[in-house]
Amino acid sequence: MTTSLSAADVGDYAAVLCDLDGCLIAEARALPGAEAFAQAAGDRLSIVSNNSADTGATLSRKLGAIGLELAEERIFLAGELAVRTVAAERPGARVLVFAEPPLRHLATDLGLRQADDLAEVVVLGRDTRFTLASLERALRLLDRGAELVLTNPDLFHPNADGRPVPETGSLFAAFRACLPDLPARVFGKPEPFLIEAALRRTGVAEADAVFVGDNADTDGAAAARAGLDFIHLVANGHPTPASDHPDPPASPTEPTPIEVTSC
Amino acid sequence: MTTSLSAADVGDYAAVLCDLDGCLIAEARALPGAEAFAQAAGDRLSIVSNNSADTGATLSRKLGAIGLELAEERIFLAGELAVRTVAAERPGARVLVFAEPPLRHLATDLGLRQADDLAEVVVLGRDTRFTLASLERALRLLDRGAELVLTNPDLFHPNADGRPVPETGSLFAAFRACLPDLPARVFGKPEPFLIEAALRRTGVAEADAVFVGDNADTDGAAAARAGLDFIHLVANGHPTPASDHPDPPASPTEPTPIEVTSC
Repeated sequence: MTTSLSAADVGDYAAVLCDLDGCLIAEARALPGAEAFAQAAGDRLSIVSNNSADTGATLSRKLGAIGLELAEERIFLAGELAVRTVAAERPGARVLVFAEPPLRHLATDLGLRQADDLAEVVVLGRDTRFTLASLERALRLLDRGAELVLTNPDLFHPNADGRPVPETGSLFAAFRACLPDLPARVFGKPEPFLIEAALRRTGVAEADAVFVGDNADTDGAAAARAGLDFIHLVANGHPTPASDHPDPPASPTEPTPIEVTSC
Repeated sequence: MTTSLSAADVGDYAAVLCDLDGCLIAEARALPGAEAFAQAAGDRLSIVSNNSADTGATLSRKLGAIGLELAEERIFLAGELAVRTVAAERPGARVLVFAEPPLRHLATDLGLRQADDLAEVVVLGRDTRFTLASLERALRLLDRGAELVLTNPDLFHPNADGRPVPETGSLFAAFRACLPDLPARVFGKPEPFLIEAALRRTGVAEADAVFVGDNADTDGAAAARAGLDFIHLVANGHPTPASDHPDPPASPTEPTPIEVTSC
């Protein structure tokens, strides 16, 4: 267990993969010690986050503005990975992307065609404009055979005061209310795909990398699935975000302290 | 089981309580036979619906425009009952009403005070503008002790083509994603409150009234709880709307035909 970021904790690793919200920032503000940690970790540091609002490019600029210098190549985000994977697997596909502008623009830049009524893939991210009409449109497409891609399964994340900020998984719960057995392809943690993408790009083996996160259910599980050591950063008294995943989430008010875990 | 409305089916009853969507109308159009049925039932007919968008006054005008003449006093709606009950129990209370304009205006007309950050009661109806920001605001109020009133638990209702149109219960599913044990006070069917209100106003005893509905899980259950005979109108091939209620809903595509059921 550790309650604050320390460069000493990650000294032995060739790659340091770190969650963003609750670890380095909270509600767009850098947390105490985050800047020093990022500087000490240097090029070994990559961000691995279930963020579905930004791309690496837009987030790199936002982080730079609050003193955290991270190149976009070192930022791995669930929403961006989902869109990039769809674009790679289905070049030029018709998609309906429920997400903020950066992700929708990325889809267009990658050659995906935004199509309300003929989409083959529905991408669901944390869309702040999502309404019942959006849900009805998505259900119609899924009924016609479209694939549902869920950027991240988080039900909520805590704000700076520890209060829950509803996440993509809350929107997915509304889908599941209408279609209880609806399948979705999930890209974010606890799936290992973001970590695997970060390791591929950095060229570091699993055994030489560590994952730092504040959520055992998502960060810890993803680290375990990818074969990485895990450092659990415990945010005292703050809710641990839960994810809509087969395993029941831990109690939001009682995160389980975990020592560094070797796989 | 009956597949169409017939005045002969309800000839012996002093009061005929009838669901609206799927029975008399579908997607704001009168269904075949609805106008003749309403005329034959005459003053014995009351509408009992989980509608949370209208008041009796606004719905009476809409129905009149499609040939169904029903006085507002004969229309009992989940959203209106919820707001009227809150206003009667807590005069002048601060409320946050997530619903369409007719219901929000009714709340104001009844002396309830719209208060974003200090509401004691959160009323959740089928709000077509509800977003993640709305959910976050509601969660904050509930965390401070506000009561959640759910106008109706329906997860969806079928449109004219039988496709699901997400309902209030889908929004409630997003609440439950963040707060799994969140309690809510429910006014719509399958609760018996709408039927009880209709019987009080018409002065007819349970034994002399019949309920006509297309959904055994909500209409049939409400009729049984209130002590009324039930006629199940089976819409061939159309989904039966499900509700987010303790009892598992029937399969959406296989409504169970039920004969007139005596209590």
